[in-house]
Amino acid sequence: MQIVEPLQLAIEELSKLPSIGKKTAQRLAIFLLKSDKEYVSKLVTSIADLKDKTRSCKTCFNISVEEECEICRSPKRDRSLICIVEDISDVIAIENTNEFNGLYHVLGGVLSPLSGSGYENLRIKELIERVKKGEINEIILALNPDTEGETTSLFLAKQLREFDIKITRIARGLPIGGDLEFADEATIGRAVLNRISI
Amino acid sequence: MQIVEPLQLAIEELSKLPSIGKKTAQRLAIFLLKSDKEYVSKLVTSIADLKDKTRSCKTCFNISVEEECEICRSPKRDRSLICIVEDISDVIAIENTNEFNGLYHVLGGVLSPLSGSGYENLRIKELIERVKKGEINEIILALNPDTEGETTSLFLAKQLREFDIKITRIARGLPIGGDLEFADEATIGRAVLNRISI
Repeated sequence: MQIVEPLQLAIEELSKLPSIGKKTAQRLAIFLLKSDKEYVSKLVTSIADLKDKTRSCKTCFNISVEEECEICRSPKRDRSLICIVEDISDVIAIENTNEFNGLYHVLGGVLSPLSGSGYENLRIKELIERVKKGEINEIILALNPDTEGETTSLFLAKQLREFDIKITRIARGLPIGGDLEFADEATIGRAVLNRISI
Repeated sequence: MQIVEPLQLAIEELSKLPSIGKKTAQRLAIFLLKSDKEYVSKLVTSIADLKDKTRSCKTCFNISVEEECEICRSPKRDRSLICIVEDISDVIAIENTNEFNGLYHVLGGVLSPLSGSGYENLRIKELIERVKKGEINEIILALNPDTEGETTSLFLAKQLREFDIKITRIARGLPIGGDLEFADEATIGRAVLNRISI
């Protein structure tokens, strides 16, 4: 016998979510089926609101309720410092550290010729526009330390070279709490190369 | 800075789902934020429909669109054979094997004094009612092979003893494709004890 249609449909849609396989989707669907109506309607509303009640910040492309996001509007932020990240989740990750007081620029991806993500898909033009306004002293590249992130960082550094601003990249090294013995050679190599005096 | 409210709310609601932690919830929320409107509305509708367009089968308590589920209504099914399972997901699992042609009875849980799930929470009374109608020749207990499942099986067997029906339990043994060397002692012990002649 086939699974009843409403359940089948919910499993199908749920299994399109990242890292949710068919089995997990089925478990989620059955959980939702047995949940009280209040929770299901709260969940459904919160998902719908995600798209309906938010937009991209017109300046940094972070998620925002207003035309410009809270970070960009904040008078407490250092407007001469811009941190370039791949995605909104990276903004959240860096904000959680409480170590950064500048503004952001969400690229919306990295250069990835294989997956067809090129220059025109990223907000590089918009970044150059921000730089041209002349307020910025330093740009921190905070892309992932993988091949695509490194390539994109190098590309951006090249594009930004003509402007009189400092360009930095977040440090690579051993993660705090990590174990030297179990770190890979590339990380240890970088950590030795980028040693700092104490 | 705090995460904008709509995103925060979606993360909160998503992280109430089973096996979805805060980090995964955030990844899902950002995925949904970036998905096209069509997918999000399909997902939301399918979740809402799960509750709105389905109900419990009045006979076996499986998920159903009609008053009685497809399995219970099917003339091809052996009405003298009832398989007792804990949950809807177990019906799906057994249906997927194509090895069972009887009807089901979804208990809706197992006896679990610690989590407060007792006799009155399960559909035992409804099962006894079905048995009393006299159509049934055999009841297969297909509960999980753990302490609570075993306890519930024994309890049900006791309750059903007064009726003139065969009561069986699905076999315990080595899983197909499993490795004897890596199986636990309890499973191997059971497999030896329940050996069958070939």
